[in-house]
Amino acid sequence: MRVIDIRSPQDIKNCSIQELESLCEDIRQFLIENISKTGGHLSSNLGVVELSVCLHYVFNAPKDKIIFDVGHQCYTHKILTGRAPYFSTLRKKDGLSGFQKRKESEYDCWEAGHSSTSLSAALGFATARDLLHENYEVIPVIGDGALGSGMSMEALNDIGTQQRKMIIIFNDNNMSISKNHSAIEQKITNIRTSSFYQNMKIDVKKNLKNTSYGTNLLKSMTNIRDHIRDEVINAPLFENFNINYIGPVDGHDIHALIRTFKAAKNSDGPIVIHVLTKKGKGYPYAEKDEVGKWHGVSPFDIQTGMPLLEHPDDELSWSEVISKTLLDLAYHDPKIVAITPAMAQGSKLLEFAHKFPKRFFDCGIAEEHAITMASAMAQAGLKPFVSIYSSFLQRAYDQINHDMARMYEPVVVGIDRAGLVGDDGETHQGVFDISFLRSIPNVILSQPKDAFEAQNLLYSAFQERKPYFIRYPRGFVKYEKNKEYTYIQPGTWTKTVVGNHPSCIVICYGPEVDKVIEKATINNMSMIVVNARFFKPIDTKMIDELMKTKLKIYIYQTDCKIGSLSSAILEYINKDIDIMGIEDHFVGHGSIRSLRIEENIHINGLFQKICEDSDAIG
Amino acid sequence: MRVIDIRSPQDIKNCSIQELESLCEDIRQFLIENISKTGGHLSSNLGVVELSVCLHYVFNAPKDKIIFDVGHQCYTHKILTGRAPYFSTLRKKDGLSGFQKRKESEYDCWEAGHSSTSLSAALGFATARDLLHENYEVIPVIGDGALGSGMSMEALNDIGTQQRKMIIIFNDNNMSISKNHSAIEQKITNIRTSSFYQNMKIDVKKNLKNTSYGTNLLKSMTNIRDHIRDEVINAPLFENFNINYIGPVDGHDIHALIRTFKAAKNSDGPIVIHVLTKKGKGYPYAEKDEVGKWHGVSPFDIQTGMPLLEHPDDELSWSEVISKTLLDLAYHDPKIVAITPAMAQGSKLLEFAHKFPKRFFDCGIAEEHAITMASAMAQAGLKPFVSIYSSFLQRAYDQINHDMARMYEPVVVGIDRAGLVGDDGETHQGVFDISFLRSIPNVILSQPKDAFEAQNLLYSAFQERKPYFIRYPRGFVKYEKNKEYTYIQPGTWTKTVVGNHPSCIVICYGPEVDKVIEKATINNMSMIVVNARFFKPIDTKMIDELMKTKLKIYIYQTDCKIGSLSSAILEYINKDIDIMGIEDHFVGHGSIRSLRIEENIHINGLFQKICEDSDAIG
Repeated sequence: MRVIDIRSPQDIKNCSIQELESLCEDIRQFLIENISKTGGHLSSNLGVVELSVCLHYVFNAPKDKIIFDVGHQCYTHKILTGRAPYFSTLRKKDGLSGFQKRKESEYDCWEAGHSSTSLSAALGFATARDLLHENYEVIPVIGDGALGSGMSMEALNDIGTQQRKMIIIFNDNNMSISKNHSAIEQKITNIRTSSFYQNMKIDVKKNLKNTSYGTNLLKSMTNIRDHIRDEVINAPLFENFNINYIGPVDGHDIHALIRTFKAAKNSDGPIVIHVLTKKGKGYPYAEKDEVGKWHGVSPFDIQTGMPLLEHPDDELSWSEVISKTLLDLAYHDPKIVAITPAMAQGSKLLEFAHKFPKRFFDCGIAEEHAITMASAMAQAGLKPFVSIYSSFLQRAYDQINHDMARMYEPVVVGIDRAGLVGDDGETHQGVFDISFLRSIPNVILSQPKDAFEAQNLLYSAFQERKPYFIRYPRGFVKYEKNKEYTYIQPGTWTKTVVGNHPSCIVICYGPEVDKVIEKATINNMSMIVVNARFFKPIDTKMIDELMKTKLKIYIYQTDCKIGSLSSAILEYINKDIDIMGIEDHFVGHGSIRSLRIEENIHINGLFQKICEDSDAIG
Repeated sequence: MRVIDIRSPQDIKNCSIQELESLCEDIRQFLIENISKTGGHLSSNLGVVELSVCLHYVFNAPKDKIIFDVGHQCYTHKILTGRAPYFSTLRKKDGLSGFQKRKESEYDCWEAGHSSTSLSAALGFATARDLLHENYEVIPVIGDGALGSGMSMEALNDIGTQQRKMIIIFNDNNMSISKNHSAIEQKITNIRTSSFYQNMKIDVKKNLKNTSYGTNLLKSMTNIRDHIRDEVINAPLFENFNINYIGPVDGHDIHALIRTFKAAKNSDGPIVIHVLTKKGKGYPYAEKDEVGKWHGVSPFDIQTGMPLLEHPDDELSWSEVISKTLLDLAYHDPKIVAITPAMAQGSKLLEFAHKFPKRFFDCGIAEEHAITMASAMAQAGLKPFVSIYSSFLQRAYDQINHDMARMYEPVVVGIDRAGLVGDDGETHQGVFDISFLRSIPNVILSQPKDAFEAQNLLYSAFQERKPYFIRYPRGFVKYEKNKEYTYIQPGTWTKTVVGNHPSCIVICYGPEVDKVIEKATINNMSMIVVNARFFKPIDTKMIDELMKTKLKIYIYQTDCKIGSLSSAILEYINKDIDIMGIEDHFVGHGSIRSLRIEENIHINGLFQKICEDSDAIG
């Protein structure tokens, strides 16, 4: 059977183990060849080929619900559900998504992109199934990194409480995106490396081979589990949540996987199957990767492992510009520390980690914890920098509001991958942060137009001693190290007058600023181009000046419109409508009545205004 | 020593155990008397009197950092740090806050209000201490409910990894706000109820009395811990995070507490002290409370336990109006289920829980999990209703965006305590939700003006089968059960013309609408009063009509201004400025270039606009 010919999981149901093994080899080659051309998530997909094949062999999707956490490891699932022919369109516009997508296939019952939602989703499905008297299996597949995130723990707690039937596949590859060294991770590593486990692995197989399917097998596996628990690790984590556990199982051993899955079907409540997989398996460069370089890749040469798209020598990624500057500032200020929620590689913080290991904190996929911990660090005298992708920053909205901004803590947050990110799609577009941060009091929110300004903004952010956000996009930018840093006053925009008789004003931000200036210049068009490098506070003085020119204004934005920079400007220039509401600050305690009086939002205030206005007219 | 005379923790350092015991009795009476007059958090504070006294007896604040999770249990801490004289001003404007507040006292090193931030904060402090070569103890005090929240787990994971010295007080009262029946909770309950523990409690004391302080004592306690672990519970949770554990300790036994705290000081890394306390201790009504009625109270009569402020018989709290309606709808639709993150009492869902126990889900303090689980329930065919306080909904921003809204799941969310809440202050004011929800595509966001409309909106929300939010304030409203439900079309406002010759327009929402109408009527003022019951979508047709009248418009809002209803109106009526940006939808995958073309946010598009406009003028 050719990979490209697979129409549905039915096609593999009658395969022998040997045929499945051979299929897995073919899928692996298919993945390497295709991803080398399109780019995409490589390592995680190579790691779960056998796992995905065995899931579809044993379970009956789409009736049974297979839910991939994050979803970037679902390529084999896509192949097995008839989507191999479309892999050349992977992550391209109107092509295959890099994640599960309901509109693509009925086999995709859930979508993600952000980590750690699969267990909550699984409990939702299982609950609905039970209440609606339906009958299907629910199988979340979650990695070790995602398991450490708070949301997963909340779900495990509830799953243990409700005891609904589900089969949780714990896909343990000892590396989330960057390598994770957390406490939980260490506990899990204990299993892997213990000599007990080495022997036990053989035992598992032997036991499985000598027993019949079903209840007996499960019983035997449960005994093994008890053995593991007592000897090695007490079923990491799961035992505390009242969730049964079997494993670990070799995630590349088709025999073992199939038998374990079949056994797990007989469990009444929730059960965890601990599967050990190797990320990047089958492609040597990816297998050797320890930092996550092969997690998400652009097109590459299979032989050499080198990327096909080279960038000019004078360009760096925005992440690198920021991290290089951070490193430079950190040399001169021992109070500067760096925090990343599992994005050391993506955020280019590995050099910082290497140079200042004691001042570098990878806290795992834990954006909430990262922001609050950073706030306390700031409160206690450090100067923390937290690097988070825009779309993942959404996880920390409350911590930004309640801890960082409300307590006015001088944390500097680098919002990486801000704006459209492209290939990863809906879940990763970093287009909401301006809107959701702008209404939070006390924060400064900025975006540099180029690397020069980026360096100065980061320098200024540490000077400012306030909650300070700097956003920057995915992609590359011309870079030269600044000879010296210049302080930038928050809320100051700059403007460039192109030509002699400007006929309009363009307000824009980020890398678009210079592009607009360049195009206007080339086309001999005269205009005022404004670099709105602060979304909060905005440059009201400059807006006043611009308004006086009476020139037509264009606000050219590359993020979501609602509540964004343009709204800030509209809110400021509004003269026609009388707007009452709570001003831009946190409101303390007191009776609602007393607070309303202080905030001037009460009926009497409204009517007084109305009467005064009417008197003024009358 | 009179409670009122305590100036600082120094005042209790030389007390005998007996004197401390007597002081605790006095503090308890002081709390009951004061809270009965001012209202406030009663049960949790009565539970930690001895605990707080012993913390201040053993540790040296403000040098040592005592961090109360949530912070509503810090009243004794306030008394011990010289604030007893101000208790009559508790939660009043310019009076004492009900939470830790840095500007109140140097003994308040951290502030909260939302649950589960103390462990992240503690690690931030401990890290800063170590890096800055300072020397102090860090002592987070966290309850069992808060511990189950995801953020706490993220922090525990990192604390176990970093192994910095801190003393975590696990204040276990077997009830967070409402009673919690989660998996973790059950495990912990096992300790409490086991006969082993009953004996062990005596053992602990005996051991403590027979050994000297310090290392030896700790060693002995560690042995006890090992004993507990093997026999009862394996040190619930903490063991998995590599965190040492001693306990349980009777939280009302001053002797035991002091000795345990002193012992814990000798631990090198993080250590958990498991303290058993009784919520409401010393006030019989509160002691017997099983559902959280005595968690936060308004002024009450000490003898009878009855509230002093009675509400008219024809009024109900907004929460009750919603929950009664939900119950009624649920009778007729078996697919309706209710979910609360630990707010069954506050959200008035206890009757629902009683009537439909299988359709009611209290998932603990887990807003993230609640929203995502509800999304999956909706996807799988149920009709979930999630009730969350506005300020706690902030925790689920990403789940609303990434799971519920992006996948267009028909979850109905009741945003309770929306708008100013008064006494609880900064951390609880529910004034941001309109702003942060409005920029999320696909959502409907509404607020009823009265109980009649509330019932119809909830009915309509379940009809609509879309992500649907209904917000309602703290407080009471006139209630009569609707005879029948009327469907309300999303995005439709209503208007009332008061008088014959309206001279202005007031756009408002919620309970303010009828107040404005009433006041205008009484004062013989003619105006158009608009009930803007949808913040998204807004009623563009009505806005067009209103604009045509050329009358002065007042937008009267009771939430934060930035990004709120007024911004929605300004965005819509803007004609002067040409605004480009991503429209109100999620953007799929593809190259950034291709997406920009589709969204019409690219340089060429901008310049084409400019040229067209200039041609039109020219």
